[in-house]
Amino acid sequence: MVQPELCPRFEQAVGMLSRRWNALIIFSLLGESQRFCTMTESIGISNRLLSERLKELEKDGIVERNVFPETPVRIEYSLTEKGRALAPVMQEIEKWSQEWLPVQEAAEDEQEPSVR
Amino acid sequence: MVQPELCPRFEQAVGMLSRRWNALIIFSLLGESQRFCTMTESIGISNRLLSERLKELEKDGIVERNVFPETPVRIEYSLTEKGRALAPVMQEIEKWSQEWLPVQEAAEDEQEPSVR
Repeated sequence: MVQPELCPRFEQAVGMLSRRWNALIIFSLLGESQRFCTMTESIGISNRLLSERLKELEKDGIVERNVFPETPVRIEYSLTEKGRALAPVMQEIEKWSQEWLPVQEAAEDEQEPSVR
Repeated sequence: MVQPELCPRFEQAVGMLSRRWNALIIFSLLGESQRFCTMTESIGISNRLLSERLKELEKDGIVERNVFPETPVRIEYSLTEKGRALAPVMQEIEKWSQEWLPVQEAAEDEQEPSVR
């Protein structure tokens, strides 16, 4: 077969970002660390899928799980330095989408698309 | 259900970029317009899939198909203005991948990962 000209690391990054939900999970953690239930609500993802994705992103060194020994125990997820370094990628996607994609009609009348 | 806090346009952009091969197709067209066969070789994608994806990207206004009435007819694909506007996204992904992902061993000894 013909050798690919594309950089394998670029392909790997695209693969990670392309995995369904990953970009939205990273985007939602850019602001501040979050609890599991807050994330399922804001992203609209099932518990099972969020749990799977967070584990993968932890393994990739992009997300970290912080356990606060309170009563009851509080667990929050945040981005590592490697994860926070994706902020410019997310910002450029957001910028492009705002410039080039049409504003969609809100699903419900009272709902405005909220940008961070 | 709970309302998503994420901007629908961001989600739409992520959806488009997440579709397998799309980011690599756009990346490979950033330099110059290309013929179909050059793209299948450099990306390592099947004819069927490339054809499908190019049609979708044309419909999305990201890629355009240019027919040059020569003998034999020459057909090249290039990015539209909307497509070229994705350059900063691709550049940031590339930058991040080079900074944060490990260099992979070349699949074959004589093959060096070539960056664009």
